[in-house]
Amino acid sequence: MARVVVDVMLKPEILDPQGQAVQRALPRLGFDGISDVRQGKRFELEVDGPVDDAALARIRQMAETFLANTVIEDFSVKVES
Amino acid sequence: MARVVVDVMLKPEILDPQGQAVQRALPRLGFDGISDVRQGKRFELEVDGPVDDAALARIRQMAETFLANTVIEDFSVKVES
Repeated sequence: MARVVVDVMLKPEILDPQGQAVQRALPRLGFDGISDVRQGKRFELEVDGPVDDAALARIRQMAETFLANTVIEDFSVKVES
Repeated sequence: MARVVVDVMLKPEILDPQGQAVQRALPRLGFDGISDVRQGKRFELEVDGPVDDAALARIRQMAETFLANTVIEDFSVKVES
């Protein structure tokens, strides 16, 4: 069984209030030197069977239609070793 | 400027209703062959200055005290090339 990771992040041009809240809280908590924070989602999928090109194409389609809102979000698909 | 990624996932023994909802929805949407889904958070931090051992130690402390709830969540810190 293989694990495929789909990361979904807001597009760079889309405001990220969650990430901004984290970034602004850090200095108050004593952590300096972080100039920007973006927060997104990580999906870990356990895939039955081999992760071949066909399986990856299906997962990419799944991410595009269901896991990410591609109007405002970018996604990336990675096979985890 | 370097990017450091902090991934925060629920511990394996903690129930993940969000991931389960995604997993149960997939066959209805025509995607088969995914036996488990876990959903977590991904933080992308833009770090001022070099990402040396001291900076990574600070970010690990930040993740432990602030980004993750280590009672129920695991985290990993990665430097993105």
